[in-house]
Amino acid sequence: MKKVITISREFGSGGREFARRLADKLEIAYYDREIITELAKRTNLAEGYINALNEQRPAPLFPITVGHTISPVPDAMWIQHNTIFIEQANLLKELAEKSDCVIVGRCADRILEGYSPLRIRLYADMQSRIERCKSRAKQGEALSDREYKQKINEIDRNRAKYYQFYTGKRWDDELNYDLCINTTGKDIKQLAEYFAQVLK
Amino acid sequence: MKKVITISREFGSGGREFARRLADKLEIAYYDREIITELAKRTNLAEGYINALNEQRPAPLFPITVGHTISPVPDAMWIQHNTIFIEQANLLKELAEKSDCVIVGRCADRILEGYSPLRIRLYADMQSRIERCKSRAKQGEALSDREYKQKINEIDRNRAKYYQFYTGKRWDDELNYDLCINTTGKDIKQLAEYFAQVLK
Repeated sequence: MKKVITISREFGSGGREFARRLADKLEIAYYDREIITELAKRTNLAEGYINALNEQRPAPLFPITVGHTISPVPDAMWIQHNTIFIEQANLLKELAEKSDCVIVGRCADRILEGYSPLRIRLYADMQSRIERCKSRAKQGEALSDREYKQKINEIDRNRAKYYQFYTGKRWDDELNYDLCINTTGKDIKQLAEYFAQVLK
Repeated sequence: MKKVITISREFGSGGREFARRLADKLEIAYYDREIITELAKRTNLAEGYINALNEQRPAPLFPITVGHTISPVPDAMWIQHNTIFIEQANLLKELAEKSDCVIVGRCADRILEGYSPLRIRLYADMQSRIERCKSRAKQGEALSDREYKQKINEIDRNRAKYYQFYTGKRWDDELNYDLCINTTGKDIKQLAEYFAQVLK
């Protein structure tokens, strides 16, 4: 059985950096945006488009007639959403089969449960997440604290809905994870080094 | 500055065993019931009595007259509750001053925040907690699953109220901890050994 580590992260908690550094230290594969690139190849869809779908819950099925016979017809968008999810799930399993790896997001903790992944969740307080977003912003692209807060809340709301839709579980429920790490005020590099020691 | 590790734990999550083993491995002091013994000496109260108070929130202050002048008079029980809390807080600070240590419960994460403690929370799913309680029960004292569940929920409710009362914070809020560890299905001894490696 391979070693699979899944990283779920609140936006701005430093999850992506943690995952990359952890994989580096453990000398195992790291998958995040590479998954999108591969999916784009397999589905002939644009990377940006797949990425956007990946952060959203599919629209719920509404009956097309109201007050008459209920006849839910899945629309094209809904089908595409689910097709990408299934394609991505298959890809995650292929990757987990291939070698030890760290995978960020994508409900990987549930999709790969057959591989007994170590399921890590990263979180932090709002101010610390705003600061982290600011420090990563390109020159001239920084937002106000209020705008960052709105953006963070919106992205997390969408991630939570996506997770809930495909797994039937709450994204922020600690019981869905083995380890929850508070990154507030922490140095991500040092944190990744600490945990790499335990997981070596 | 000394190394202080505080352990908050859901009842039945194996928190006490984890704390003891972690302290053993790190070769630092471990305080749990020892605190009650010392408090009993200092306050001339029975250990069992202090223990019971420690798991309960003090009764809220109600005005003794209603509809007239509000004149809240603290009762003897309330005073004793708070006296013990303050005495205990002083004792925790003395212990943290004396040497590196692991302390279980008692709002130590907040009381000792000046010592930058590593604040760990242990949790587990209900079935796993019931199983852990069963395995620890003395012969002839085992309860039914339903009774264990009731007991676990009641103890945790009281711990949450106590924490909320003295710290103004939610006991189960992940932001109050640096690290939250899911002990569901885990071997506590092994878990403590893993984390001792990181914290050495």
